[in-house]
Amino acid sequence: MMTLEQIGKKAKAAERFLAKADAAQKTSAIESIADELIKNTDKIIESNKIDLENGKNNGLSDSLLDRLALTPERIKGMAQGAMEVAAMNDPVGKVLDGGVNKNGMTVTKITVPLGVIAVIFEARPNVTSDAAVLCLKAGNTVILRGGKEAINSNIAIVEVMRNAVEKAGLPADCIQLIEDTSRDSARGLMTLNEYVDVLIPRGGAGLIRTVVENSTVPVIETGSGNCHTYIDKDADIDMAAEIIFNAKTSRPSVCNACESVLIHKDIAEIALIAVAKKLEEKNVEIHGDEIVCAILPDAIPATENDWATEYLDYKISIKTVDSIDEAIDHISKYSTRHSECIITNNLEASQKFIKEVDSAAVYVNVSTRFTDGGEFGYGAEIGISTQKLHARGPLGIDTLVSYKYTIIGNGQIRK
Amino acid sequence: MMTLEQIGKKAKAAERFLAKADAAQKTSAIESIADELIKNTDKIIESNKIDLENGKNNGLSDSLLDRLALTPERIKGMAQGAMEVAAMNDPVGKVLDGGVNKNGMTVTKITVPLGVIAVIFEARPNVTSDAAVLCLKAGNTVILRGGKEAINSNIAIVEVMRNAVEKAGLPADCIQLIEDTSRDSARGLMTLNEYVDVLIPRGGAGLIRTVVENSTVPVIETGSGNCHTYIDKDADIDMAAEIIFNAKTSRPSVCNACESVLIHKDIAEIALIAVAKKLEEKNVEIHGDEIVCAILPDAIPATENDWATEYLDYKISIKTVDSIDEAIDHISKYSTRHSECIITNNLEASQKFIKEVDSAAVYVNVSTRFTDGGEFGYGAEIGISTQKLHARGPLGIDTLVSYKYTIIGNGQIRK
Repeated sequence: MMTLEQIGKKAKAAERFLAKADAAQKTSAIESIADELIKNTDKIIESNKIDLENGKNNGLSDSLLDRLALTPERIKGMAQGAMEVAAMNDPVGKVLDGGVNKNGMTVTKITVPLGVIAVIFEARPNVTSDAAVLCLKAGNTVILRGGKEAINSNIAIVEVMRNAVEKAGLPADCIQLIEDTSRDSARGLMTLNEYVDVLIPRGGAGLIRTVVENSTVPVIETGSGNCHTYIDKDADIDMAAEIIFNAKTSRPSVCNACESVLIHKDIAEIALIAVAKKLEEKNVEIHGDEIVCAILPDAIPATENDWATEYLDYKISIKTVDSIDEAIDHISKYSTRHSECIITNNLEASQKFIKEVDSAAVYVNVSTRFTDGGEFGYGAEIGISTQKLHARGPLGIDTLVSYKYTIIGNGQIRK
Repeated sequence: MMTLEQIGKKAKAAERFLAKADAAQKTSAIESIADELIKNTDKIIESNKIDLENGKNNGLSDSLLDRLALTPERIKGMAQGAMEVAAMNDPVGKVLDGGVNKNGMTVTKITVPLGVIAVIFEARPNVTSDAAVLCLKAGNTVILRGGKEAINSNIAIVEVMRNAVEKAGLPADCIQLIEDTSRDSARGLMTLNEYVDVLIPRGGAGLIRTVVENSTVPVIETGSGNCHTYIDKDADIDMAAEIIFNAKTSRPSVCNACESVLIHKDIAEIALIAVAKKLEEKNVEIHGDEIVCAILPDAIPATENDWATEYLDYKISIKTVDSIDEAIDHISKYSTRHSECIITNNLEASQKFIKEVDSAAVYVNVSTRFTDGGEFGYGAEIGISTQKLHARGPLGIDTLVSYKYTIIGNGQIRK
C-alpha cells in the first residue's frame, strides 16, 4: 500500500499535467468515466456485495445498508451525474476582473484550479464518483478517503474511473483512493499540507468536527444543518404550516431540513395549532417550550439540548418568542449557519431577518429544503459549506477554483 | 487581563452590532480613528519611546528599531491610510449574482462580513491601525495580537482607536488587542475556533509557518515571496536587466522583490553580463550555478539552499536552464507562489508561462515589485495571500468578506 506521502506526490505531479489540459480533454475524461461506470456495472456491484455482506455481519442498520447498496439504476445515476457535469461550462480560465493600470500594464484576474483536493466521506459510494468528477471538471486532482463500510465498492469505482481517465489521455493519478481506512490515514491526510491544497469533509457532525479540530490543511466545512423557521406575527399561517411541513418531512435526513420552529407569541396559539395539524400527518414528534406544551397536549417538554439538535428524523423543536429580535438571538446561539427562514408579510421584518441572520441561505416565505446547487442554478455540488471562508452554501464547480493575476507589460518597473 | 475566551466573546457580540451598522456608520468610525490618531500623536509617541528604549536595551538591530519607531509623520501616514479606506466603496451588501429560479423565487448572492478576524503580526506598529481599519470597513471585528517589541505602542494605538470608534457610536470591542504577548496567547488564538472566523498572520516566514502548522482556525497565509524572473531565449536583454535590477534593488526587504533569476542557456552569456553589470551598481551578491560562475568570476557557487532562500537583501541567485520547461519545473519546486515573471517577446512562451506557473501573480515583461493592492487598483491591503483558498494576491477590503444567499418567495415548497 502506498504511503500518504507517495499519494500526495502523485497527486501534485498529476496536478501539473492537468493544469496544461484544455477544457475538451477534461470533458472527454469525464464522459469516459460515465461510459466505463456503465460498462463495469457488474464488476462494481460484485464488490458492493462484499461490503453489503460485511455490513450485515457487522450489524449496520437497514437505512445505512440502503445508503451503501448499489444497483444498476444507482450506477446509471452516477454516470448521468457525470454527464451533466461534463456538459457544464469550464470553470477554469474565466476572467473575473481586469483592466489596464496607470502604468500601462494589463492586469487580469482569472480562475485557476485549486490544486489537490482531498475529500473525506462516509458510507455512500456514489459520493466517490460525484466528488471525483466535480474536482476533475475544475482541473483539480482528487484524493478520496471513504469509510471502511464502502471500501470494496470504492476500490472498484476508483479503479474504473482511473482507467477511464487514462483512456482519455489524462494521468490516472488525477483520481486516487486511500485504501487504508484506519483513523491514522484520516488524521495523516488532515496534516498533509505539503501536498493537499484543500480538504473537504462530507458526512455527519462528528466527522466534520474531527476534521475542523485536527486539520492544518485548509478545510471547507460542510454539512450539518440545524435549520430554523421563524413564524413572524405578520405571517400567513397557512403558508407557514405548508412550508414547515415540507421543510421537515419531505426528506428528514438531509441537512437543509427544518429542525426548529420559532413562533411570535402574538400568533402562537393559532400558528401552533395549524403547524401541529400538518405535522401530525407524518407523526412528527414535537418538543416544545412551556407555552407550546400548554397549547399542544401531545408535545414533549424541550430541554436545552433540543434547541441545539439536528434531529434528521420526524422530530422538531418549537419555541415561542416575544419578538423578532429574540428569534434572531436564538438562531444566532443555536444555528449551524446553514439555512433559516422567516414567514412574514412585513417588509421591514423580512429585511431585518435577511440582514441580521448570519447563515449561508436566508429565506423569506420559502422552504429551507431549496438550499441546493441545482435549485440555485449552479448544478451539482460536492456539499453545502457552512463556513465563511472561500465559499458558502452549495459547493458547485465554480467554487472549486482559485484565481491568479496575470500582468502583461512592456518593461514596466516600479518607482 | 482578559482571557482569550472573554476577548472572543466580546468580539462576537460586537460583530452582531456591526452587522446592523450601515456604510455611513462604519465610514464615520474610520474617519474618527484618523482624527484621534492625529490628536493623540504625542501620547502614542510617548508609549513608542518605551518600546524603543526596551528595544535598544534588548539589542534590536537598527533596521528593526527603524521599523518600530513612530514619528508624527508616520502617525500622519497611518491617519491618511485610514482616510483612504474610509473613502472607498462599502464592500458589504454587494450583489454578486442573482436571478429568479424555475420556481419563481428570487435568489440573490450578496457579500457579508467574514465575522471576527484575528491578525497576528510582528514589530511594525502601523500594521495595528492598517489592519483594524481594513477589517472595520468590511464590517468585521478584529482581534490584534502584535509582537512584544511594540506592545506599548500597540496598547496606545488601540486605546485611541477604541475611543474613536465608540465616539462614532460603534462598540469599542470592534477592535481588541491581546496584551499578553507570550507564545501561549498566539497558540491559544490559533485554536479559538468558536469565536474567530479567520486568522491572518503577517510577518516573516517563521511566523507564517508556525500559524499554518498549528492553527485549526481557518488561515489566510500571507507573505513570504521567493520570486523568480526567467529570461527566455527570445528576451529583450536590456529590458531584462532593467526589470531584474528594479525587482531586486528598489526595496530588497519586501516580499515581491526578485530573489532568483533563471536564464535560458542560448542567451546565457550576453544576458548574464548585462544583468550582472546592472546589479553591480548596488553591489548585489550573485550566487550562481557552474555556468554562471564560469562567466561571472565574482559569483559565489550556489548551493541547493540558495534556490529556496528569500534573501530580503542585496543578494540574488542565478541559474541557467535548457528550456522554458526546466524554468517552470524549477519555479514549481522552489517558488512560494507569490510572484514570478518571464521576460520574452515570444507569444507562445508567454502564454505557456502564464498557464503553467502556479503563483498569485504571473508577469510578462514587468517587474515583480508591482504585486500590491494599490498598484492593481484594489487599494490598501492587509497582506499578500500566497494560498489558494478564499483569496490570492493582495488582500484588499473586497477579500475580507464572505457572502450569503437570500431567497425571497411566496410559499414555495420543494417537491
